[in-house]
Amino acid sequence: MEFTPEDIRKFNDNSLYNAVGIYVEDAREGKARSRVRPHKDLCWPFEGQPHGGVLFTVMDTTMAWAVLTRIEKGYNCATINLDIQYTRRELGDLFFCHARVTQSGGQIAYTRADIFDEKEKLVATGQGCFRIVNAPF
Amino acid sequence: MEFTPEDIRKFNDNSLYNAVGIYVEDAREGKARSRVRPHKDLCWPFEGQPHGGVLFTVMDTTMAWAVLTRIEKGYNCATINLDIQYTRRELGDLFFCHARVTQSGGQIAYTRADIFDEKEKLVATGQGCFRIVNAPF
Amino acid sequence: MEFTPEDIRKFNDNSLYNAVGIYVEDAREGKARSRVRPHKDLCWPFEGQPHGGVLFTVMDTTMAWAVLTRIEKGYNCATINLDIQYTRRELGDLFFCHARVTQSGGQIAYTRADIFDEKEKLVATGQGCFRIVNAPF
Amino acid sequence: MEFTPEDIRKFNDNSLYNAVGIYVEDAREGKARSRVRPHKDLCWPFEGQPHGGVLFTVMDTTMAWAVLTRIEKGYNCATINLDIQYTRRELGDLFFCHARVTQSGGQIAYTRADIFDEKEKLVATGQGCFRIVNAPF
Repeated sequence: MEFTPEDIRKFNDNSLYNAVGIYVEDAREGKARSRVRPHKDLCWPFEGQPHGGVLFTVMDTTMAWAVLTRIEKGYNCATINLDIQYTRRELGDLFFCHARVTQSGGQIAYTRADIFDEKEKLVATGQGCFRIVNAPF
Repeated sequence: MEFTPEDIRKFNDNSLYNAVGIYVEDAREGKARSRVRPHKDLCWPFEGQPHGGVLFTVMDTTMAWAVLTRIEKGYNCATINLDIQYTRRELGDLFFCHARVTQSGGQIAYTRADIFDEKEKLVATGQGCFRIVNAPF
Repeated sequence: MEFTPEDIRKFNDNSLYNAVGIYVEDAREGKARSRVRPHKDLCWPFEGQPHGGVLFTVMDTTMAWAVLTRIEKGYNCATINLDIQYTRRELGDLFFCHARVTQSGGQIAYTRADIFDEKEKLVATGQGCFRIVNAPF
Repeated sequence: MEFTPEDIRKFNDNSLYNAVGIYVEDAREGKARSRVRPHKDLCWPFEGQPHGGVLFTVMDTTMAWAVLTRIEKGYNCATINLDIQYTRRELGDLFFCHARVTQSGGQIAYTRADIFDEKEKLVATGQGCFRIVNAPF
């Protein structure tokens, strides 16, 4: 599927992304980019540090967008598994996620993603497998 | 560390658990149990189905509680990595997570967890590694 | 598929299992059991301790056998991903692997496995996803 | 640690690498490169296709070499966990592994690796965590 900036802008306005603070910036040609400005309620137990679940959520989401650019209209994707590593304490109030499809073609897509803080330090890295499902996006 | 029911009740009242819908029920002897009643804003893109990030967050949290029962006062734990598998579509509005420490002793604790829906169907399973950090809980 | 003890005995006589020291003991109803007596050439860099790749190989193999018991004749399975944790230094010359399918049904099977040493200490634990492929076993 | 080509050449002559067919080509500045020409006994159950355990073994090994370049003399590393994805059927008799440390500094090093076939197709990708241990290499 191809997404115009307008498509992406519209999809961004949903209850999940608003609750977490996610904003998908771009998705094309097997890659996707997003940012997250974590809602302060989700920065617990350490003030100013989002829970690992926030980084996971933005990573899973961004990987899925990367996959969507590789599949046909009428299909969607679902996470089979995702392994996330937390490489550094995630301090700050803005993070950037870059995801890409490393392999797709059949009914499974393989992805990889990195999350950086504002100083471009790597705070999390991950790899995930998605299955392609016959369902409208 | 040992936690009384009163300790756990108090810890449950925090901004993250309230925002997601998490409630830790018990934590002792290398095991922990929790439930999550996902906030409806987090049930997207499919109504009535929590985003995978919700299940991840409760799994990570419950694993951490299991680890806390195996470490001394004055220490805390941080996720090194967590691999989650989504084994079945997570339908329903209440889920239960069971986590346990499979090995601990040095500076790393190994954990495993399962999440079930109300019909006791397995919807997610995972394993994670935590490092023990010298920081107050 | 169902396997008789004779089927399993025959399958065990192959170049891979002989080179590594793997012996599958049983496979039925979504579970499989094997043992490995690692070839001494594979116990490197530490004498008397098999390389992690040996434990991985027996884990992957045993998980696959568990999956095979859940699929029809004419099908086979292939590893999508496998996350292995090394929970304890793997000392000794005999190890036991227990694998089971946690969920199957569509084109993906989810598995989990543990490896124990002779003293029944957990030395490795893992979870893996397999895809079911239309190919003779 | 720093390794001269002569150091690496010498280390390559060990029972494990010889049995599997591994040859480490370079290791410096957080990166390592190796190749594997799988022993035919390990190409089972499909002739001409190494078992997944072969690719895992070379990946784990190459990641460890990358980690060794980031630690001081007198220390060594041990795999905490490794998640490997098999992205494409691994056909051929020669594969190349590229590993790098994504983050290190404390007692844990995070790594990532890719394995390619002779046509530079990605056949496996992975990420692993290692702990730094106080033991001679």
